[in-house]
Amino acid sequence: MSHSIKHAAIPGRLFIIGFGSIGQGMLPLILRHLDITADRITIITADARGRDEAAHYQVDFQIRPLTRDNHRDILVPLLRRGDFVLNLSVDVSSLALVELCQVTGALYLDTCIEPWAGGYTDASLSPSLRSNYALREAAMELKSRYPGGPTAVLTHGANPGLVSHFMKQALLNIAQDNGLDVAAPTTRDGWARLAQRLGIKTVHVAERDTQVADRPRERGEFVNTWSIDGFVSEGCQPAELGWGTHERHFPVDGQRHEFGSDAAIFLNRPGISTKVRTWTPMEGPFHGFLVTHNEAISIADYFTARNEDGGVAYRPTCHYAYHPCDDAITSIHEFVGKGYVQQERQRLLMSEIVDGIDELGVLLCGHEKGAYWYGSQLTVAEARELVPYNNATSLQVCATVLGGMVWALENPTQGTVEADEVSFERVMEIATPYLGPVVGVYTDWTPLDGREALFPEDLDRDDAWQFKNVRVS
Amino acid sequence: MSHSIKHAAIPGRLFIIGFGSIGQGMLPLILRHLDITADRITIITADARGRDEAAHYQVDFQIRPLTRDNHRDILVPLLRRGDFVLNLSVDVSSLALVELCQVTGALYLDTCIEPWAGGYTDASLSPSLRSNYALREAAMELKSRYPGGPTAVLTHGANPGLVSHFMKQALLNIAQDNGLDVAAPTTRDGWARLAQRLGIKTVHVAERDTQVADRPRERGEFVNTWSIDGFVSEGCQPAELGWGTHERHFPVDGQRHEFGSDAAIFLNRPGISTKVRTWTPMEGPFHGFLVTHNEAISIADYFTARNEDGGVAYRPTCHYAYHPCDDAITSIHEFVGKGYVQQERQRLLMSEIVDGIDELGVLLCGHEKGAYWYGSQLTVAEARELVPYNNATSLQVCATVLGGMVWALENPTQGTVEADEVSFERVMEIATPYLGPVVGVYTDWTPLDGREALFPEDLDRDDAWQFKNVRVS
Ligand SMILES: NC(=O)c1ccc[n+]([C@@H]2O[C@H](COP(=O)([O-])OP(=O)(O)OC[C@H]3O[C@@H](n4cnc5c(N)ncnc54)[C@H](O)[C@@H]3O)[C@@H](O)[C@H]2O)c1
Ligand SMILES: NC(=O)c1ccc[n+]([C@@H]2O[C@H](COP(=O)([O-])OP(=O)(O)OC[C@H]3O[C@@H](n4cnc5c(N)ncnc54)[C@H](O)[C@@H]3O)[C@@H](O)[C@H]2O)c1
Repeated sequence: MSHSIKHAAIPGRLFIIGFGSIGQGMLPLILRHLDITADRITIITADARGRDEAAHYQVDFQIRPLTRDNHRDILVPLLRRGDFVLNLSVDVSSLALVELCQVTGALYLDTCIEPWAGGYTDASLSPSLRSNYALREAAMELKSRYPGGPTAVLTHGANPGLVSHFMKQALLNIAQDNGLDVAAPTTRDGWARLAQRLGIKTVHVAERDTQVADRPRERGEFVNTWSIDGFVSEGCQPAELGWGTHERHFPVDGQRHEFGSDAAIFLNRPGISTKVRTWTPMEGPFHGFLVTHNEAISIADYFTARNEDGGVAYRPTCHYAYHPCDDAITSIHEFVGKGYVQQERQRLLMSEIVDGIDELGVLLCGHEKGAYWYGSQLTVAEARELVPYNNATSLQVCATVLGGMVWALENPTQGTVEADEVSFERVMEIATPYLGPVVGVYTDWTPLDGREALFPEDLDRDDAWQFKNVRVS
Repeated sequence: MSHSIKHAAIPGRLFIIGFGSIGQGMLPLILRHLDITADRITIITADARGRDEAAHYQVDFQIRPLTRDNHRDILVPLLRRGDFVLNLSVDVSSLALVELCQVTGALYLDTCIEPWAGGYTDASLSPSLRSNYALREAAMELKSRYPGGPTAVLTHGANPGLVSHFMKQALLNIAQDNGLDVAAPTTRDGWARLAQRLGIKTVHVAERDTQVADRPRERGEFVNTWSIDGFVSEGCQPAELGWGTHERHFPVDGQRHEFGSDAAIFLNRPGISTKVRTWTPMEGPFHGFLVTHNEAISIADYFTARNEDGGVAYRPTCHYAYHPCDDAITSIHEFVGKGYVQQERQRLLMSEIVDGIDELGVLLCGHEKGAYWYGSQLTVAEARELVPYNNATSLQVCATVLGGMVWALENPTQGTVEADEVSFERVMEIATPYLGPVVGVYTDWTPLDGREALFPEDLDRDDAWQFKNVRVS
């Protein structure tokens, strides 16, 4: 793909809300691949981060934190049909912005369903209502109120986002490798039946970030390769997972929601202290954090096959298994050790990264060939060569955001959609040049490997892919 | 204290078995403070580490790994009454060496009861028999066979070792701060009654090591500030803790031993993946690893007060709560994540450390003033200034080894003893100049602080110092 192809045009103005690691990574990609001039872009953000970059590209940069009280006054006068709102902020309600876009006719995309500030850890709400499940149900409700409205793409970053597209490609690859002659399904039910037919029991979003800086983490500092506030917030939500039909041991601390799709459950504990066993090709086996993410719910829901009576015939278990960079591991250890009191200092690693890779993909488990990982192995060096103002993590997000924006511009009246409802072929086409090697690898690793070498454990030896075998803590 | 004081003389030869981080740290201290010349010292070790240092001090350096089969043949011809065996190795049975010393009349000191190689993780043994409890019971049995034999000081490093002496000083400090007019007890029973009278429920050996190198840990590397093999070995033993009389919730995975003192229990899981809540003055609250250590058992046993019928009237809970350096945290995460398969590469941080402190002490919990930490806060800079070939961790060990050697030379017919049976005044006198600030600090922190902010937890709110409140995983 030539670096100068313009994939689509934004007819009106582009408003970028939030200009942190993802916003900053996006701007050069937008100017490169979308037909829009810098003078039609406005950044609305809460702090000075990225001001120099905005100036470099001659883009309007406004520090105007949006709140529940001021967002209408600020945005309604600005927004018109043909505009695009790209929400890459934290602490700004995605649903509030989507609603404004539905009303004003602007297109919309975000990478996470954010609530207003404090919403993730509002102790006056039950854990069920602090979950991504609840946020997603509210989004579904909003979607149903504006059928055929201007396209609003929710949660379309790397994960959530890209991994939903990886999931579909991975299913097609496994089918082909098993000698099945299947065309890409065209309906949701078709995809679910394919997953069921292949015997996929569990899907991990298995990520190992090895990026490392030249300067060690200091005590009292939270270090990460993307939003520290974002990670801490989602880490303090309950651990959530799509709950598959093959599961036969409901977790003692697990709970179903009393509303909505019922595709997912939550554990009555924060994801940032909940560990699971998983596997990626470069890293091999490791422990990741079961931090809640929209894709854990949306993939489980999307790939649900139903009986004629509407009952659930098949659903995969799905959850995140995240090994952030090593400095984030010790940041988490400190944060959790101090009773979930956030460190005062943050360091978002960008230019000081000296080495590393973000290995991000889906691990489809339980089929005939064992488990299959499909995803991106992007090094920080390659990311920097491809697009300035990026590390490996941000570019995986930004490439997918770009793909989602193009799809929205090409399909402007789809109303509110999640990644699973967006064309995976089109997004992959646009994103792939920015993902480094995209590989599929089979493994016979299971979470039963090497268990009970020294101590007895409570295992289900009859089915390796039971969540109780996967879970560490 | 003058740096040139000779505390005691070794009449015969000194054999240093093992010359890793502790052996190398000891040599300059020995030459400085013991009356012995370099030509009467022999190092017997398993690899070339430290060869340059030995050459620098003109000390005989022999690479001759000791094994179950060869140790008698190598050592018996060498050992004579008046000699000293300083065992600072891994993988060499402490009890085998003690027995040789009892027979030949040599004095002996080690910092850990080591079994022969593989003993810690011999899966043919039950967890109970792979415990430090079992190793200690075997040592007690040996002790009883040679009453009044040449002094053999077991487990006399920093911890185990120094912390037993801190414990006594801390009890005296608390008594004084509570206006109690107590003299230092002179019997074991006296000490136990003092702890009981003060209401000590739980003793943490609470350690936070913040030492950090200039070069980040690489994948596949285990990094630590002292023996990596030693740490991994003890980390794979069952988590062990002295089990106090105030405890009313026996752990679901807990088990009593079916032999011996019954002062401690073990959890049916490795300590290196077992976390507890604790506190130190500089760090504040944090999570440490409940790795088994001899002091957890010996302190609980030593401070047991008995009824007239011999039944247990009082015993404190005691365990380690270890926060190793940050690079060790990620090393552990990797090691455990790969199913306890040890990394092939090791890096023992010494000259490359750029900053940090080893904050090591005892936290006495449950008395009137809450909790009291008493210990050493030694920086790496001060350690280096005091003694070459040391970091903060090794010097805390070496200072105590020196104290123990002096006490043994001054009391050469005590048979086999643990730290708790050694004069705390004498050891503190010798060690203190090398420990940096030795401080006592009260805190009202408890493991109930900040709990259940976002999720329900299973707590005993009536007694903060129940182990179930302390335990994390
Ligand atoms: N789906 C994915 O793969 C993925 C990956 C990374 C990040 N994300 C999400 O993208 C979002 C941004 O991530 P990031 O790494 O760029 O975060 P960041 O923390 O680096 O930046 C957040 C930005 O939001 C701005 N902001 C904060 N409060 C605001 C307010 N009230 N009004 C306007 N702007 C406000 C901040 O000023 C900052 O510019 C987060 O929601 C994060 O969860 C998603
Ligand atoms: N009590 C404490 O506070 C404390 C603190 C640190 C270390 N220790 C203990 O001290 C001991 C040494 O620790 P370190 O950090 O110096 O360890 P290290 O790993 O740096 O060195 C171990 C040494 O033992 C030698 N060795 C290995 N196998 C041997 C054999 N078969 N025969 C002779 N020598 C052999 C090695 O060659 C090496 O020199 C360990 O048992 C450790 O657990 C105790």
